[in-house]
Amino acid sequence: MSFTIEERGRPNTQDYRVYFKNSEGKYVSPFHDIPIYAEEGKNIFHAVVEVPRWTNAKMETWEDPGHKDGDTGCCGDNDPIDICDIGNKVCSRGEVICVKVLGALALIDEGETDWKVIVINVEDPEAEDFNDIDDVRRLKPGYLEATVDWFRMYKVPDGKPENQFAFNAEFKNRDFAIKTIKETHGFWKALVMKKTEAGGLNCMNTCVSDSSFICSSNDAKAIVDSASVYGEAEPIPSSVDKWFYYSK
Amino acid sequence: MSFTIEERGRPNTQDYRVYFKNSEGKYVSPFHDIPIYAEEGKNIFHAVVEVPRWTNAKMETWEDPGHKDGDTGCCGDNDPIDICDIGNKVCSRGEVICVKVLGALALIDEGETDWKVIVINVEDPEAEDFNDIDDVRRLKPGYLEATVDWFRMYKVPDGKPENQFAFNAEFKNRDFAIKTIKETHGFWKALVMKKTEAGGLNCMNTCVSDSSFICSSNDAKAIVDSASVYGEAEPIPSSVDKWFYYSK
Repeated sequence: MSFTIEERGRPNTQDYRVYFKNSEGKYVSPFHDIPIYAEEGKNIFHAVVEVPRWTNAKMETWEDPGHKDGDTGCCGDNDPIDICDIGNKVCSRGEVICVKVLGALALIDEGETDWKVIVINVEDPEAEDFNDIDDVRRLKPGYLEATVDWFRMYKVPDGKPENQFAFNAEFKNRDFAIKTIKETHGFWKALVMKKTEAGGLNCMNTCVSDSSFICSSNDAKAIVDSASVYGEAEPIPSSVDKWFYYSK
Repeated sequence: MSFTIEERGRPNTQDYRVYFKNSEGKYVSPFHDIPIYAEEGKNIFHAVVEVPRWTNAKMETWEDPGHKDGDTGCCGDNDPIDICDIGNKVCSRGEVICVKVLGALALIDEGETDWKVIVINVEDPEAEDFNDIDDVRRLKPGYLEATVDWFRMYKVPDGKPENQFAFNAEFKNRDFAIKTIKETHGFWKALVMKKTEAGGLNCMNTCVSDSSFICSSNDAKAIVDSASVYGEAEPIPSSVDKWFYYSK
């Protein structure tokens, strides 16, 4: 299964958008129309790359674009679950990759539990050696500790406090992580079947046949057609293009 | 004193070039025509940004473009001295910045001494607090150790051995660093005055009035005019866009 993207607007501006198409050229929602399993029963999941390594812009493509009041914090639980890929490929924004789940870290981000699922891109040359969280501990000593440090500190440069962790910042193993993914998948199903309140989340999709929010290919195309034309990137404002010294 | 750049060719290809102009719009050599002192007698030097943070392409604009045999290793001693800026601004390629010298690290890079001068961009909000290498040690604990680690390891992903250091990997202080810069400045003077062998280095310049290699503005412009037109960036090949786990 393969996906491509279409960029609209100018990168590094508010009107920049990334739209997704499946292999038939049909527009799809990256939130709702990409199957969770890349290989069912095989611990291989699909993941959408939102923030490639060395970048820091969040895309949030699944937020309701007509709903700009900014209080999406309360919908946090319905957001797609985050992954953190330990593979060596620097992926591109909007890439849909196949990943093997290894474990999970329970970040408390500004008061909400926000799972970070540790995965490895199946294309990684060492992917075969990694099957559970202990393999990361054994084959990449210090890597998990550095990951906790990063998630603890990454909002400090924005003037926010350090993030906290549940479970004493210990990583849960693969089976626990998969159970958590399946739970959030259940939340998602209830959402697109309109069994829970969408709360500002955009549930429009083109492939979930029994969803109340399915729209036609033409409707999807009309949305993309109405977006700004793709243009040259704006320079990143120097006010956000900084790096910081911060000690533990 | 301010400089601007003109890019030619397509970024991430072999024909990509960055040309420099001074505030009068006259083409200048980034190697030969930018004065070493930004403020004479004040420990404020000019530095040209070659590899911005989060990027890894070397520009080597000062190599003789007609001399592609690749054995420039033997000219290493005549290369402009490298700096490592600890300021918080992520600069852009070709930016000419004013820096305060704080110290220096003597890297042995594939057999040659290759000084890394530690500086801080004078625009950094904390620049006033940094005047010598001990200020870095005191105000950013662990920073110098992390810098040594980085320079020790950065070629390992390319299959090369760890780099070594002279002086037991200890940082020299500001006065030593400034003395070293002045020495290399002397080597540069001998080079552009044709008192030493250029050995494949391009010494062409437009501002060094007593140099044998000075050329006219028109000659410089002809070089820029003959370059490829600027075009859209090629994607970075995934074979070089990787990251690595490597433990001490």
